[in-house]
Amino acid sequence: MSDPFVVIGGDAAGLSAASKCKREDPDREVVVYEQSEWISYAHCGMPYYIKGEVERLDNLLSLSPAEVAERGIDLHRGHEVVDIDPESQTVSVQGPDEAFEQPYGDLLVATGARALTAPIEGTDLDDVFTMHHMDSAAAVRAFLTPPDSEEGFDAGYADVTEVVEEYRNRDPPETVAIVGGGYVGVEMAEAFRARGLETHLYQRSERPVPPFGEAVGDRVVDSLAEAGVDLHLDTAVESLAGEGRLERVEATDGAVDVDLALVGIGIRPNTDLVADHVECGDSGAITTDDYGRTSVDGVYAAGDCAEMRHTVTGTQEWVPLGLTANRAGRAIGQTVAGDPEPVGAIAGTAVLKAFELECGRTGIVDDDSAREAGFDPLSETVTAGSRSGYYPGNAETTVTLVADRETGRLLGGTIAGEDRAAIRIDTVATALEGGLTVSELERLDLAYAPPFSPVWDPVLVAAKVLGGRLDDT
Amino acid sequence: MSDPFVVIGGDAAGLSAASKCKREDPDREVVVYEQSEWISYAHCGMPYYIKGEVERLDNLLSLSPAEVAERGIDLHRGHEVVDIDPESQTVSVQGPDEAFEQPYGDLLVATGARALTAPIEGTDLDDVFTMHHMDSAAAVRAFLTPPDSEEGFDAGYADVTEVVEEYRNRDPPETVAIVGGGYVGVEMAEAFRARGLETHLYQRSERPVPPFGEAVGDRVVDSLAEAGVDLHLDTAVESLAGEGRLERVEATDGAVDVDLALVGIGIRPNTDLVADHVECGDSGAITTDDYGRTSVDGVYAAGDCAEMRHTVTGTQEWVPLGLTANRAGRAIGQTVAGDPEPVGAIAGTAVLKAFELECGRTGIVDDDSAREAGFDPLSETVTAGSRSGYYPGNAETTVTLVADRETGRLLGGTIAGEDRAAIRIDTVATALEGGLTVSELERLDLAYAPPFSPVWDPVLVAAKVLGGRLDDT
Repeated sequence: MSDPFVVIGGDAAGLSAASKCKREDPDREVVVYEQSEWISYAHCGMPYYIKGEVERLDNLLSLSPAEVAERGIDLHRGHEVVDIDPESQTVSVQGPDEAFEQPYGDLLVATGARALTAPIEGTDLDDVFTMHHMDSAAAVRAFLTPPDSEEGFDAGYADVTEVVEEYRNRDPPETVAIVGGGYVGVEMAEAFRARGLETHLYQRSERPVPPFGEAVGDRVVDSLAEAGVDLHLDTAVESLAGEGRLERVEATDGAVDVDLALVGIGIRPNTDLVADHVECGDSGAITTDDYGRTSVDGVYAAGDCAEMRHTVTGTQEWVPLGLTANRAGRAIGQTVAGDPEPVGAIAGTAVLKAFELECGRTGIVDDDSAREAGFDPLSETVTAGSRSGYYPGNAETTVTLVADRETGRLLGGTIAGEDRAAIRIDTVATALEGGLTVSELERLDLAYAPPFSPVWDPVLVAAKVLGGRLDDT
Repeated sequence: MSDPFVVIGGDAAGLSAASKCKREDPDREVVVYEQSEWISYAHCGMPYYIKGEVERLDNLLSLSPAEVAERGIDLHRGHEVVDIDPESQTVSVQGPDEAFEQPYGDLLVATGARALTAPIEGTDLDDVFTMHHMDSAAAVRAFLTPPDSEEGFDAGYADVTEVVEEYRNRDPPETVAIVGGGYVGVEMAEAFRARGLETHLYQRSERPVPPFGEAVGDRVVDSLAEAGVDLHLDTAVESLAGEGRLERVEATDGAVDVDLALVGIGIRPNTDLVADHVECGDSGAITTDDYGRTSVDGVYAAGDCAEMRHTVTGTQEWVPLGLTANRAGRAIGQTVAGDPEPVGAIAGTAVLKAFELECGRTGIVDDDSAREAGFDPLSETVTAGSRSGYYPGNAETTVTLVADRETGRLLGGTIAGEDRAAIRIDTVATALEGGLTVSELERLDLAYAPPFSPVWDPVLVAAKVLGGRLDDT
């Protein structure tokens, strides 16, 4: 029996695993199958490419196929794994020209996630996009770019000529709709407004970015409104309508004529291939243990298709994010090379730029989620300065912390502000990993100097107030 | 016997304690004696006041005597405590008009620190300053301000007319010397250069800011040189020379004619008053326990005159910094009000702005100190990006981490870079409080989004590299 390490998926998790395994055990055969032409691209950078802040499409590529080859990895693009057989330890591969069986010693499923479009009608119309592939990024930027500009479409090893040409020949849009006020929606609003477009953002619930909680959501609303985004909150989009090409958005608050729609209503894990073989959680993503192992011997999963242990709840949860994919992939690469390394836990730490507003969240950020996880939550929101009050650039920073009433343990928090707010969430994330109580957080010896922070960092102010309330209960 | 809470010193620690005690126990008599006319001023803001970024002198005052009185605190400025008698629980007070005995129930010694000038000769010359009092800040800014400008000298409740008038009437300096490349020296270099002065900075050792370690020191050297500061490293100042007024600096590398000298070669705790009564450490500062209690019953100490327990070594150390003073004062105020609260530990977390360069340090940052504290250190320095490589504003960030070889425990670290580097030290400070190992640090779920951080935050990159070396040993 052959012993290669076979990886399904050539993005963050897959190539981190392949690279680490090869580095630790250069003699091991490492084979990667990637369905598309693209590998190792920065999904999170696409809105900034469309905005124009990132100049060229190939700036978003972190590893080329040639670099992967140099690492001794046997990479096959345009190859889809269509079946797996854990019994015989083989996968069935469909290449561009031929189908074949690939035996494996260890298998990593790193199939990622796909952008959701249901239940919105009309998402198959022309000029309707999701933001989950390099081709969409190229198409949207081509659509937005004035016809006389030639920059930005160098795609390195892959070919986007067709999609770019098609969209360069259309009249640039003037009015756009964003369906969904999550990360992608908010970041794309910045991109569209930067290009001077009338931008309508639709969000079903009362506030955008629900995973960031109410206090951050309120500040994001203000930030979007101030930037001239037409907000349609508490509004469901019923359909995208048109004849072949998109013409208008029909929503519960009426219809708006638009030239482009961006649908960002969530993603789902790609697990069709393995769902019959390995255990999946309620989220639909693959259940994994502390070493990224699935329920089947020799089969690992990592990245956007996998659940991981949550730092605070200790249970398996699905929080598809970039660092998680890279870290789990790297750990699995080391493990299959013979030196077992835990994949670590996820706290769901995330940061978001909403125009000038910086937002962060980590752990459990609202009382309902805390109760569901079995805690008796107490939470507090404060607004405090980001620097000494007398120092220029001091900005109002809103911090929410959630704790367990019984133990005083910190469960999570959020932050929003225009001055270095995002990076401050790392203090809370680190405190979660350390299992700190609110009193311990309150006594942290954090940095203070007028240009960077007030004597009491906003996170400490929130901890003091929440600590006081915990003492009283 | 009377039961008042008596506080010696009306700055950060003293007034934090007085305020907290009064808030928790409004009936308690709280008396504060402050030797000078100033209370509760932002020492750390002085360089930025002199630079002109902070407009007025009174912007640096965080609490006025009237506000202190409103809190029900009995504040006496211009009152020096000249003796204490723990037997009879009284202090002897010298006021402007009379001397008297003040009985106490609890006593807090918050006498702060003073700027060191020895062994430099000539520091008593005119136009030689230290930067430890509001009067010096007013004098230096007056000296630097062109005679036709009237702004900036509003001092609120205190009177600086005399010193301001005196220095406004002198010709502004053109060439200045800074003796000592610590925090104050580096921050004042920024202030002087912003005002266009030829600025000579003298540092006895090879690099400025020794507590930040070698890697940061090297970057500070580059930053100062790039900003046009004349650096005299490895150079001892022998004397400041002149007839009445300063004329030149005489150093081991020769003499330079200067119009102003700023001496920032360190501070010493003010403990003359209590040194015969309470136990002091090797640093000369007062030894305290986890509740800020000294060796004498009913006598507490906090702020720049006190030692505290170090997060990493567990021993008493003297690290005089702003947050420490505020936090310890506040905790002691709560304790004496009947609800004991630990003062917390210090990790020596500090941040510094050296022109555009942001620097941070926390815990033990070099191998020698780690060995002295009984550890077997391994350290690593890396330079990594502050944001995704393709995103504008990505800046090289240098991180050093120190760990204990045997346990893998993180002992401390430093950081330097131009893009949000300072705040990132809080991740390391929080990890120290949580007692994290380098492997745990490496697996932290930190924030990632292209505008704020690369997938692997520079702190995580350093942890990965150091973790790899720990695994190999």
